[in-house]
Amino acid sequence: MDTEILIAGASGILALLFMAYLVTDVLKQPRGNKLMVEISDAVQEGAKAFLRREYMYIAGFVAVIFLLITAAPILAKGKEGIADSLGWQTGLAFIIGALASSAAGFIGMNIATRANSRTTEAARKGVEDDKNPEKGLKDALSVAISGGAVMGMAVVGIGLLGLVVVILIVNALSDGAGWGAHPGWINGYAMGASLVALFARSGGGIFTKGADMGADLVGKVEAGIPEDDPRNAATIADNVGDNVGDVAGLGADLMESYIEAMIAAMALAAGLSTMAKIDGLPQDITMQLQMLPLVLAAVGILASLIGVCIVKFLPGKKVQSSLMNGTYVSAILAIVGTAVACKIMIPDFTMTAKSAGGLLEGAANLVGVADGKTYTWLGLFFASTAGIVAGAIVGFFSEYYTSAKYKPVQSMARKCQMGPAITVTDGLALGMKSCALPILSLGIALLVAYNFGDFYGIALAAFGMLATTGMIVAVDSYGPIADNAGGCAEMAHLDKGVREITDNLDSVGNTTAAIGKGFAIGSAAFAALGLLVAYMTLAQISIADLKDIHVMFGLLLGGMVPFFFSALLFDAVSNAAFKMIDEVRRQLREIPGIMEGTNKPDYARCVSISTDGAIKGMLFPGGLAIVLPPIVGFAFGAEALAGFLIGALITGVMLGIMCANSGGAMDNAKKYIEEGKIKNDAGEVQGKGSEAHKAAVIGDTVGDPLKDTVGPSINILIKLMAVISLVLAPLFV
Amino acid sequence: MDTEILIAGASGILALLFMAYLVTDVLKQPRGNKLMVEISDAVQEGAKAFLRREYMYIAGFVAVIFLLITAAPILAKGKEGIADSLGWQTGLAFIIGALASSAAGFIGMNIATRANSRTTEAARKGVEDDKNPEKGLKDALSVAISGGAVMGMAVVGIGLLGLVVVILIVNALSDGAGWGAHPGWINGYAMGASLVALFARSGGGIFTKGADMGADLVGKVEAGIPEDDPRNAATIADNVGDNVGDVAGLGADLMESYIEAMIAAMALAAGLSTMAKIDGLPQDITMQLQMLPLVLAAVGILASLIGVCIVKFLPGKKVQSSLMNGTYVSAILAIVGTAVACKIMIPDFTMTAKSAGGLLEGAANLVGVADGKTYTWLGLFFASTAGIVAGAIVGFFSEYYTSAKYKPVQSMARKCQMGPAITVTDGLALGMKSCALPILSLGIALLVAYNFGDFYGIALAAFGMLATTGMIVAVDSYGPIADNAGGCAEMAHLDKGVREITDNLDSVGNTTAAIGKGFAIGSAAFAALGLLVAYMTLAQISIADLKDIHVMFGLLLGGMVPFFFSALLFDAVSNAAFKMIDEVRRQLREIPGIMEGTNKPDYARCVSISTDGAIKGMLFPGGLAIVLPPIVGFAFGAEALAGFLIGALITGVMLGIMCANSGGAMDNAKKYIEEGKIKNDAGEVQGKGSEAHKAAVIGDTVGDPLKDTVGPSINILIKLMAVISLVLAPLFV
Repeated sequence: MDTEILIAGASGILALLFMAYLVTDVLKQPRGNKLMVEISDAVQEGAKAFLRREYMYIAGFVAVIFLLITAAPILAKGKEGIADSLGWQTGLAFIIGALASSAAGFIGMNIATRANSRTTEAARKGVEDDKNPEKGLKDALSVAISGGAVMGMAVVGIGLLGLVVVILIVNALSDGAGWGAHPGWINGYAMGASLVALFARSGGGIFTKGADMGADLVGKVEAGIPEDDPRNAATIADNVGDNVGDVAGLGADLMESYIEAMIAAMALAAGLSTMAKIDGLPQDITMQLQMLPLVLAAVGILASLIGVCIVKFLPGKKVQSSLMNGTYVSAILAIVGTAVACKIMIPDFTMTAKSAGGLLEGAANLVGVADGKTYTWLGLFFASTAGIVAGAIVGFFSEYYTSAKYKPVQSMARKCQMGPAITVTDGLALGMKSCALPILSLGIALLVAYNFGDFYGIALAAFGMLATTGMIVAVDSYGPIADNAGGCAEMAHLDKGVREITDNLDSVGNTTAAIGKGFAIGSAAFAALGLLVAYMTLAQISIADLKDIHVMFGLLLGGMVPFFFSALLFDAVSNAAFKMIDEVRRQLREIPGIMEGTNKPDYARCVSISTDGAIKGMLFPGGLAIVLPPIVGFAFGAEALAGFLIGALITGVMLGIMCANSGGAMDNAKKYIEEGKIKNDAGEVQGKGSEAHKAAVIGDTVGDPLKDTVGPSINILIKLMAVISLVLAPLFV
Repeated sequence: MDTEILIAGASGILALLFMAYLVTDVLKQPRGNKLMVEISDAVQEGAKAFLRREYMYIAGFVAVIFLLITAAPILAKGKEGIADSLGWQTGLAFIIGALASSAAGFIGMNIATRANSRTTEAARKGVEDDKNPEKGLKDALSVAISGGAVMGMAVVGIGLLGLVVVILIVNALSDGAGWGAHPGWINGYAMGASLVALFARSGGGIFTKGADMGADLVGKVEAGIPEDDPRNAATIADNVGDNVGDVAGLGADLMESYIEAMIAAMALAAGLSTMAKIDGLPQDITMQLQMLPLVLAAVGILASLIGVCIVKFLPGKKVQSSLMNGTYVSAILAIVGTAVACKIMIPDFTMTAKSAGGLLEGAANLVGVADGKTYTWLGLFFASTAGIVAGAIVGFFSEYYTSAKYKPVQSMARKCQMGPAITVTDGLALGMKSCALPILSLGIALLVAYNFGDFYGIALAAFGMLATTGMIVAVDSYGPIADNAGGCAEMAHLDKGVREITDNLDSVGNTTAAIGKGFAIGSAAFAALGLLVAYMTLAQISIADLKDIHVMFGLLLGGMVPFFFSALLFDAVSNAAFKMIDEVRRQLREIPGIMEGTNKPDYARCVSISTDGAIKGMLFPGGLAIVLPPIVGFAFGAEALAGFLIGALITGVMLGIMCANSGGAMDNAKKYIEEGKIKNDAGEVQGKGSEAHKAAVIGDTVGDPLKDTVGPSINILIKLMAVISLVLAPLFV
């Protein structure tokens, strides 16, 4: 076995061992009093029940697609090269990918829903038993970050180990020709992870926002009870939603990008390898290029692991700076490690663009820059770093446009005084405006990465952005745990000091969530681009000309898809919210004693309503994302499909950024007003309950599905359509 | 002089003669009582004042750009072929284009603002003097449609005559080589019209919605006075806004598409002509292809003229059916006329794709379908008809998604009961969903037109959609006249029966406006595509490959522009509304007796505030649209610019459709509720003043800038950027 595969496998196992340690660490913490245990159990049960049903439906899709992939070589009898890309081997990889993503989601969410009351209890112990709130904060942070890091380590550990397993299987099936002989088989792995991610993200997104909007509209607006109040029947569903949306959904999203960035780089390097035979590029260099992502993944795991330890064991005074310290350290370690790996593995090499016909021409065209361009290890390092830098810039702008620390949200909060219409308009405008600089930086990173490493460089940049996925997911999943911990404190009527600690943890979580979303979008764009180019190579598209009417048609049609897909998700959320409102109203009406607190509402029924809404709502848009690429490919050809994917990528990225930032800004503008930071012309504070606040609440409710359902799902849409096209590419030749 | 140019010139003059007749017809109608005359004068004065200031700024832009175009051959010394495309000749055409668009806008708006009180007076006379409301309706319709048709005839008459003048000038300057020898010079004409259109649309859009939102937010919400109430200081500004936005703005928009579709077809045919020399395609056929759009324009003018006469002289019982009859008859006449013109002018011909280098290769590539493909007159007729059919389908879906006659708006109105957040979310989702089928039909029309006539066919399809522009603009400009007539009736405290007539006229105007917007977007997309292909030919781009990193970069960057541009317009509207609110509040506070009706508010001051806001707000986004194409072209090359234009086209078309339909639907959902069509679960009507109505008003306010400012301006953005690129193309070679 190659050293590089060994390194990757070992680091994957290391991640899982660390994860196991974190799991035991979380589980050994005390769960709190009886009420807290009850609440935590209810959330856990609800989340599990949702996952069970969701996975059941996904299993159906997986089974059908597995059969189709397996039967493809038979169905497409006579087509050249099909068996190298499709067949039961690809199907097997597909199933492994689906299992890997499901397993990570299951483990991560299971622990996240157990970490919530334990976080609350750690805070409570510090405040009430030890009379030491500072210790309470540190202990609570330690539990919460452990819980989040379980998801982080599961994503990278299982994601990478799964890939290693697939590579070993393909190796074994290749009769000594090496796994590079069947590059298409491996792609199935990415497609499996992508499929699960789509349903996890969109289903989770519909669940969480349907429950949230339903809970808020009846609870806060009609019944006049605060958020997370146990008298609101939708409260548990709301808390479950945080977990299925932000933990399982985000984890699956980043796992997909993580896997796809690696696979895109490997597929592009494999294309080079085929070409190398006729171009005199030493075979071992192309092999090294294929191996590089695996080693970079190992580097990233180590860096993330250290980052998590810093947050957990060396927390600073402030929660925010603790989390940022860990993030920075892991990023710096990853950059240094990348430089070392590139230096050791990659000698300078020169590529020439001699080319033959068919696939080789495609590959030659792919690297068809000036004849004899020389690539260096340093260049590849720059390409990878361009991705990291672009990701950080996109993350920064996400924060700039969504945090109340900066001007945009502050000025929006002031405009809330002009009523809900201007608030919403302003929020949408802010989101649209916020596309400009992130897109510019992504574009420049694209040019830089290409300059230093051709399309392989772009895939490397995508992976650069994702190297520390373990850390990013840990920090991101920490958010919902802190949020749930706050809900638990509220529902269990704990001391105000406890709630202060959890609120502190939670508010930091909002910022990290915004940054995480920026990363998710940026990396999705890069990963999709990498997949797209790999698709064009595999589909033997030597030219996809903008003047080709089919390309134009594809661009137009593809550009429409994210809009239509978003509309379907919006509808699903509002339908789910509608049913939730009805149910909460019914319970308030029919179950006596709820408002007096003498009787408990039927939480489980609300969870089951959200589950139904999410499952029903995700099927059509999800199915659409799956069937559209083959329809376009078969009906209008491979070039039209290339245009289609790019069209979807372009509008998708814009909508994704816009939705995430609009939603984030409206949320934080509301909080800013609640903090009493806005004054009217007469100098009076316009806080909670003011007209400005009412307008901001409406804005926030509009923003909720934008940032938590539609925006994130679009990331997956563009990646999934690209990876499906990649797998099916040989059929469209 | 060629027969075809004679025909075009004659039909242009015919349109202007008919226009002159309509002008005298409108002006000879009585203006109504003193109050009505006062109101009408105030609106007229306000509109003129705005146009004066707007044109002053535009003149500045025109002067600078004229100098740059004139100096271009000197600045780009040594570049081949520059003088054939740029220079003072192009600059002259540019100025003629700008003058043509300005003149049409000035005439059309001048008469529209005089037709308003005359329409009211015709209705009043029928109701009060003749005691015959039916006659009042017919007479009022006759005045209103005459007023609208002045704009319609001005657009096509001046647009076509201007083009003929430019062709004759270029002919005279070409020393017998014919105007086809300098295809680039003519393009300046389109660019001039486009520049004026951009400012007319965005400036007018900011004016109208800033005033409207400001008037509504203080008047209806705070002071509790009805719409169009004379006590509201912003009322006149609101009425002025209808004219500058919907009459002058829409006219300039469609005039631009009209001119550009012709010019794109002529430019593409000119490209063929160059190629014909080496390919054996008879020179006279390519000449006929260049002339065809001129003859089709003549056909369209005749058809529109007849359509207007049908509405004016043969009105049916219902206003809606009168307008539709006229529209259908003109469309059918245009189709028949197109068939006849194609049959007479175009013999079957076969093109082969022999090619030389440079420009010729571009042209060859352009028609580079299978060697020896034969084109027929019938095929070209089909291509043109594909455009008409696609336009009608897009128009139908605009109506389907925005009219309260159909399910989408009705279901949205019901959801208004769930509060403003769900209302807005639902409105946005509806707009996003409404992109799907129009885009699909545009895409299919694209394939059909290309199949029958290559890219020339696409330009022909664009022109097919626009052949009856005269009729479309007439019906569309009729809307604001009817709207203003209603305002006049309200402010002059006329009989309820009068207001009923104007309301009847107005509500039909809303539907025609939605259809007109659909046409405007569809034709903008086609015209922009035609320009884009012409640009690629002139920039000698033989291939713009999706795998070219610069193309990719351009696509991404271009896709971002409509989002950023929209955000700037949103900001401009909300800033203008903000200032308007302050001013109306101030007047209510400081001028005694306004609310009692004993004192008049200072209308002029509000008009001037809107004017300021519109001028300030339009400069930056407008300037951006002008400078971005050259920046991208010079910095990243011709291919990147091609990608940039397509990227902007894709996201622009989607946003355009979404904005128009979201806004239209929210407006009509509000009206549907006001009509008492919505009941709650208990069966009680939820009409004016209900919670559902309040939510709908908020939704409508959000939708207003979407449909009247942002959406329409995006049409122009994508066309303007394309035409600028076309004019500058030789510089990027």
